Amino acid sequence: MRVFIAGVDGYLGWSLAMYLTARGHEIAGADCYHRRDWVAEIGSQSATPISRMTDRLQAFRENFGINLQFIRGDITDYNFVWNFFRSFEPEAIVHLAEMPSAPYSMMDVHHCIFTHTNNLLGTINILHAMRDICPDAHLVKLGTMGEYGTPNIDIPEGNIEIEYRGRKDTLPFPKQAGSWYHQTKVHDTNNITMACRIWRLRSTDVMQGVVFGTRIDEMGDDERLLTRFDFDQCFGTAINRFCTQAVLGASLTPYGKVHQRRGFFALLDYMQCLAIAIDNPPVKVSYRSFHQFQEVFHFT
Amino acid sequence: MRVFIAGVDGYLGWSLAMYLTARGHEIAGADCYHRRDWVAEIGSQSATPISRMTDRLQAFRENFGINLQFIRGDITDYNFVWNFFRSFEPEAIVHLAEMPSAPYSMMDVHHCIFTHTNNLLGTINILHAMRDICPDAHLVKLGTMGEYGTPNIDIPEGNIEIEYRGRKDTLPFPKQAGSWYHQTKVHDTNNITMACRIWRLRSTDVMQGVVFGTRIDEMGDDERLLTRFDFDQCFGTAINRFCTQAVLGASLTPYGKVHQRRGFFALLDYMQCLAIAIDNPPVKVSYRSFHQFQEVFHFT
Repeated sequence: MRVFIAGVDGYLGWSLAMYLTARGHEIAGADCYHRRDWVAEIGSQSATPISRMTDRLQAFRENFGINLQFIRGDITDYNFVWNFFRSFEPEAIVHLAEMPSAPYSMMDVHHCIFTHTNNLLGTINILHAMRDICPDAHLVKLGTMGEYGTPNIDIPEGNIEIEYRGRKDTLPFPKQAGSWYHQTKVHDTNNITMACRIWRLRSTDVMQGVVFGTRIDEMGDDERLLTRFDFDQCFGTAINRFCTQAVLGASLTPYGKVHQRRGFFALLDYMQCLAIAIDNPPVKVSYRSFHQFQEVFHFT
Repeated sequence: MRVFIAGVDGYLGWSLAMYLTARGHEIAGADCYHRRDWVAEIGSQSATPISRMTDRLQAFRENFGINLQFIRGDITDYNFVWNFFRSFEPEAIVHLAEMPSAPYSMMDVHHCIFTHTNNLLGTINILHAMRDICPDAHLVKLGTMGEYGTPNIDIPEGNIEIEYRGRKDTLPFPKQAGSWYHQTKVHDTNNITMACRIWRLRSTDVMQGVVFGTRIDEMGDDERLLTRFDFDQCFGTAINRFCTQAVLGASLTPYGKVHQRRGFFALLDYMQCLAIAIDNPPVKVSYRSFHQFQEVFHFT
């Protein structure tokens, strides 16, 4: 299948490109190196060495015997997305090009605005380009369980049946995000749901837990194929950050109250999850959501 | 009360400035004339003559014996909002500076993106400036009944109690908007709700029906005080547009299916509604929503 990965230089995107290539998919990717810039902006770096893209692509070619079709570009530029879709004609689009950090989005008004424009406009451009160029393609989009907040009722996968004052309807589950980053995911979910309804597109919204780990088999022993291992206060997610802190003998730095319980997901299993979603698009025109996590951990 | 009106050159903003001034409030307003530009862009104009802002301000001074404090500027520019709030110190902020047309937002990807950036970023800037400068001010924001779509259950004002699999919670009513414009209102509602929760701000989200009419008493016989009467396919809302078409002997041009039922609101009554919201802010830190319409009309 021809799979386009937006954000192919990132933590998940780079891993997924290899994982899918090893399973026979044809991959094209785009990135504008935002993740490298964001981590540098807050004065940190990946604990694993991250090669320049030219070296990554060279290693990709040597290890997989095939080119990763890469173009540097920003999906908030509609012309870029349109031209890429027109030439590659994707059958699946995996959107991993959003700014993924709640703390980064909360730093100040400018980071809040950047998170909104980067995350929303990229998704809006992809939806319009799908409508205009590849309406049969399948969008696989990363949401987060954090869109729901922490309601005191079960969260069904998909809609919820509500009975109220003697009448019933099946409606989207109410969202209560807790950061600007999480809000942009809610906004995306609303926008994608509408686009699927009015333009007859297909999308899978993966409401995932926190992903941890850095290795998949396809990286082998080639250091140039490693993916990121961020451990800073913005892009170092729980577990990855705590592991680094433990190795350094530093204090653990959880956000919020230490009795939080959250869903987590190992990188390798997450690759499998995305591949299953890509290999099995919704048969009918629709928006669907998958809740994906492997284990629930909490501090004690 | 010191009231800041964002979008004071528009249909509702200009009327509200006079209505509140006549009732003893001190008004400051900002606008960057977007509404004039949008209507010109689609090749139309207001049926009522709209004076230049300098003439409007002169007429305001002559009729009310007081200056309307006006600065030309765009609230998507944070520095502009910050400086305005710092010098005026508003006690209430009425946000009427959003792009209000569903058809305009649906024209193409560029109008969708403009609607998102204009509407979301303006609100985000206001929320941050409130937090930083006037956390006790009261934000009165225009939502729309269209945020809810057309569910098959009653829509309570505020949250809804949901019982599901043996547990209960009170959650925001699920949103199902039908255009990009309406989506931006949903996004705003989510963002404002969160800002009120985490920053302890106060806001009234007025979920209004379609406003019609062009006259309030304060305009008197001074033509320079008239507000807009748009009748085009984007900014001419139902009733106003149909009245113009009827006068011209042209066919009525409803959108969608002709058996729609919608809530409507006369301009004068809507001014009263906003004034009541402004005069009666929420006592406690909170987000509240008012559902405002006067009559429900449908085509037959």
